[in-house]
Amino acid sequence: MDTSEFRKRGKEMVDYIADYYDQLDTRQVYPDVEPGYLRHLIPDSAPQEPESFEDVLKDVERIIMPGVTHWHSPYFFAYFPTASSFPALLADVLSGGIGCIGFSWAASPACTELETVMLDWLGKMLNLPEEFLAGRNGEGGGVIQGSASEATLVTLLAARTKMIRRVQSENPELTEADIMSRLVAYASDQAHSSVERAGLIGGVMIKNIPSDDKFAVRGSALKKVLHEDRAAGLIPFFFCATLGTTPCCSFDRLLELGPICNRETIWMHVDAAYAGSAFICPEFRYLLNGVEFADSFNFNPHKWLLVNFDCSALWVKKRSDLTSAFKLDPLYLQHCHQDSGNSSFRSLKMWFVFRMYGIKGLQEYIRKHVKLSHEFENLVHQDERFEICAEVTLGLVCFRLKASNELNEALLKSINESRKIHLVPCHLREKFVLRFAICSRTVESFHVQFAWKHISKLGVLMDFSLCR
Amino acid sequence: MDTSEFRKRGKEMVDYIADYYDQLDTRQVYPDVEPGYLRHLIPDSAPQEPESFEDVLKDVERIIMPGVTHWHSPYFFAYFPTASSFPALLADVLSGGIGCIGFSWAASPACTELETVMLDWLGKMLNLPEEFLAGRNGEGGGVIQGSASEATLVTLLAARTKMIRRVQSENPELTEADIMSRLVAYASDQAHSSVERAGLIGGVMIKNIPSDDKFAVRGSALKKVLHEDRAAGLIPFFFCATLGTTPCCSFDRLLELGPICNRETIWMHVDAAYAGSAFICPEFRYLLNGVEFADSFNFNPHKWLLVNFDCSALWVKKRSDLTSAFKLDPLYLQHCHQDSGNSSFRSLKMWFVFRMYGIKGLQEYIRKHVKLSHEFENLVHQDERFEICAEVTLGLVCFRLKASNELNEALLKSINESRKIHLVPCHLREKFVLRFAICSRTVESFHVQFAWKHISKLGVLMDFSLCR
Repeated sequence: MDTSEFRKRGKEMVDYIADYYDQLDTRQVYPDVEPGYLRHLIPDSAPQEPESFEDVLKDVERIIMPGVTHWHSPYFFAYFPTASSFPALLADVLSGGIGCIGFSWAASPACTELETVMLDWLGKMLNLPEEFLAGRNGEGGGVIQGSASEATLVTLLAARTKMIRRVQSENPELTEADIMSRLVAYASDQAHSSVERAGLIGGVMIKNIPSDDKFAVRGSALKKVLHEDRAAGLIPFFFCATLGTTPCCSFDRLLELGPICNRETIWMHVDAAYAGSAFICPEFRYLLNGVEFADSFNFNPHKWLLVNFDCSALWVKKRSDLTSAFKLDPLYLQHCHQDSGNSSFRSLKMWFVFRMYGIKGLQEYIRKHVKLSHEFENLVHQDERFEICAEVTLGLVCFRLKASNELNEALLKSINESRKIHLVPCHLREKFVLRFAICSRTVESFHVQFAWKHISKLGVLMDFSLCR
Repeated sequence: MDTSEFRKRGKEMVDYIADYYDQLDTRQVYPDVEPGYLRHLIPDSAPQEPESFEDVLKDVERIIMPGVTHWHSPYFFAYFPTASSFPALLADVLSGGIGCIGFSWAASPACTELETVMLDWLGKMLNLPEEFLAGRNGEGGGVIQGSASEATLVTLLAARTKMIRRVQSENPELTEADIMSRLVAYASDQAHSSVERAGLIGGVMIKNIPSDDKFAVRGSALKKVLHEDRAAGLIPFFFCATLGTTPCCSFDRLLELGPICNRETIWMHVDAAYAGSAFICPEFRYLLNGVEFADSFNFNPHKWLLVNFDCSALWVKKRSDLTSAFKLDPLYLQHCHQDSGNSSFRSLKMWFVFRMYGIKGLQEYIRKHVKLSHEFENLVHQDERFEICAEVTLGLVCFRLKASNELNEALLKSINESRKIHLVPCHLREKFVLRFAICSRTVESFHVQFAWKHISKLGVLMDFSLCR
C-alpha cells in the first residue's frame, strides 16, 4: 500500500468510524456470541498472498462487530467509562503516523517534552500542589503510564527501594531479604485487586484495612493496624489510598490518613483512577483535599476525561524516587535501548483534547455525567422496592432490590440477557449490588430514563416470579 | 466535534500523514532542538475555551515537528527499527474507534478471541512447536504484551512463583522469604538491561553469564555458573536466552542451553525482540532451533514485522503458569475490573498486516532489509581503514575505524552532528562500536550507499584531523 492508496483507504476508514458512531445506538450493546465463536469464522493460518483492503473491511463487519461489546453505546452502563473523543482519535492518527518511540530525550525530544508539559497542564487543572509539578526546575512531575495498576506497581516498587535503603543505612547488618520479609503495604478492603497484585509482584506483604460503613478507610483504622504490625516487628512502607473505589466510588479519608503516613514515613500513594477526572471541577475538588500529604497521585484521563486509552497520569513529589529505583545504566539506556515499555506519543492526545474542548468543555462533560447519575438515583429512590446502596457522589449509582442476593442476581441476569442495556454487579459487604455507571460520551437523559424503565419493568417480573 | 466534523478533520489528518511520508526524506532525520525547547513555545496552562482544529494542526508543524526524531526516515539507522505500515495505521484507527477494553472475555469477546487466533497464525508463520499454540484445546498459547521488557518481567515472575511453590512443597519448613533470598536468574552479559530490571522488580538475584568471542552464551558457560551457584546453596530458576542481542545481534546457543535448563528445572525464556521477525523466512528459521526446550518465547512484531507499536508477542507452553501466578480473584476481575494494563484491540493490526501483506510480502520485506545490511557490510569490508566487529546475520552491521575509541567516538559525533543520517553506538567488550541498523520501511540501496559515502568521507576527515 503506497501513500496514495493510504489516502483513499484512510478516508474510507474515517467514514467507517463516523458511521459507527452515528449508528451506535442501533447496535446491540452486548454481543450474542459464545466463547470460541471467532475461530470458526477465520482461516487457520495467515494467507501466503496479499488480500485487499475491501475484503478485510468486509470481514470487520462480518467477524469482528458481532463479537464486540460496545463500550461507547449510550446503553452501556457497565464497569467505568473508557474515554472516546474525536480530538483524541485524531491525535492518535498523528501519533501512529509519526511512530516515534520515546524512551529517552534523544529518541524523540518533542515526545518527552510535551508529556512533561501536558502533565503540568493537567496538574494545574486539578489544582495539584505545586510540589507535584515539574515546572522549569521542580523536583516533582508527572509521567504517563498505561494503567492505574501500573502506577500502583511503579510507586510500590519505588517505595520498597526507598525503605530498604533507609533501613539498611540504619542497620547495615540486615540483608535485603531480611528487610523484604518484614515489609508491609496497606490498602482499603475496597481497593482494586491490582494493589494486591502489585504486592505479589514486588514480593511484599499486603494487608487490607477495614473500611467504615461508608466504605472509606479512616485514620483510626490505619492507626490500629500500624500499631499491631509495628509491635510484631513488621516495617510498614506503603499505603495506597483510593479516591473513588471500583465497587461503589467511595473515598478514603486523606486528611486523616495523610498525616499518619507522613509521621510514620510511609509512602502514601493516591489512586483516583476513575474519580480523578472530576477534580477539574471546583465543586468536586474538595474530594482531593489531603493530596498534599501524598508522595504520589494517579488517575486515568483515559477513563473520564475524553483522552482515549491508554493515558494514566502519575505524579510524584520526587522524580528521583522513581528514577533511582529503576535506572540501571543510564549510558547504555541512552544509546542502545531496545524498548522500555515507555512508548508512543501519548501526550499528543492530551494536547488535542485539552485544547479542542478547553477546560470549560471538559468541566461541562463531567457535570453532565454527574447530573445523569443523580437523575438515575432519584428514579431509584422513587421506587420503594429498590434501595441505594452507597452515597452517589460522581457518575456511579449502586442499587438493588430490597430482596435477597439471589433475586438481585436474577434481576441482573435478566437485564443483561435482554441485551437492551449492559450493567455489571459488585459485592458490598455481604450484599450483591447492581452498578449503574454513566459511561458513554453521548448518553443523555433519554437513555437513563429508558434504562430505568427497563430495569423497573424487569424488577416487577422478578417480584411476580417470586410470588408464584 | 460531531461526527460530520470528524469526517472532515479525520480526512485532513489522513492527508497530513500521507504528506508526511511522501516528504519524509526531505526532513532532517535528527532534530536541532535543545532540552527544554518546547516549554517556551506553548502556554503555561490549558485554555479555558475551546480552540480550533486548524490552530492545533498548525502548532504540530510549528512546535512538534522541529523536535521529532524521524524514526521512519530512510536516513534513520539508529537503535533497531520500529514498525510502521499503512495497514497497521488503518487498523489502529479502527481499534481507536471501537475503543473497547479487553481485560476479560465478556468485556470484549472479539478482542480476546482475535488475539488468541492471531498469535496462533504468527506462531505458525515462525514454525513454533505445536505446544506453544492455543489451537482449539491446547495448554499453550500466545498473548500480546507492550514490550519485550514486559514479557521478560511476566515470565520471570511466573517462573519465580512456580519455583517457590515447588521448593515449598518439598521443604514446607522454608518461608517464602528464605526461598526468595536464594533464587537466582541468569542472562547473557550481552542481554538487554530490562532483564536486570526484571530481577530488580521481582526482588531476585540476576547474574550475567559471560558470552564467548561471538558474543553468544554457550552451554559450558551456563553449566559452570550453575555448578558454582548450586554449591553455594542458591536456587537457579530462570534463564533468559537472547536471540539477536541489542548491541550486535548475536545469538545464544539454544541447542546447548535448552537441555541444561530442562534437566535442571530452570525456566528458559527466549527473548528475540528484534530478530524474531526474521524467523518467518525459512532460511533464517535455523536461528530459532532449540526453542522446543523453552518455556516461553517472545519477539516484537512492532519492531520488524510492520505491525505498529505496541505489539510484543509472548508464547508460553503452559498458559496456567501465567494465570496462576497473577490471578487473584477471578470472580471480582470478571465483574468490576478497573483496568489491568490489558488493553485496546491490538490484534486488529496483526490481522490487517498479515492479510494485506501476506506471508510472502512480509518475507520479502525481511529479505530486503537483510540484503541491504550485507550491502553495507561489503562497503565497509572494501575500505581497509574500517573493520566489521560482529558477524552480520540480519539487518544490523557493527563496525568501526581501526583506531582508538576516542577517534570512533569523534567519528560518530561528527556523523550525528551533520544531521544527514542518524546512528547510535554500543560497546563490544572494551571497544566503542558504531551500529548501522536497517530501519525504515522505505530505505533503499540508494540511501545505504549515500550513508556509507557520508561516513567514509567523515572518516577521512577524522584521519586528517588526527594527523595534524
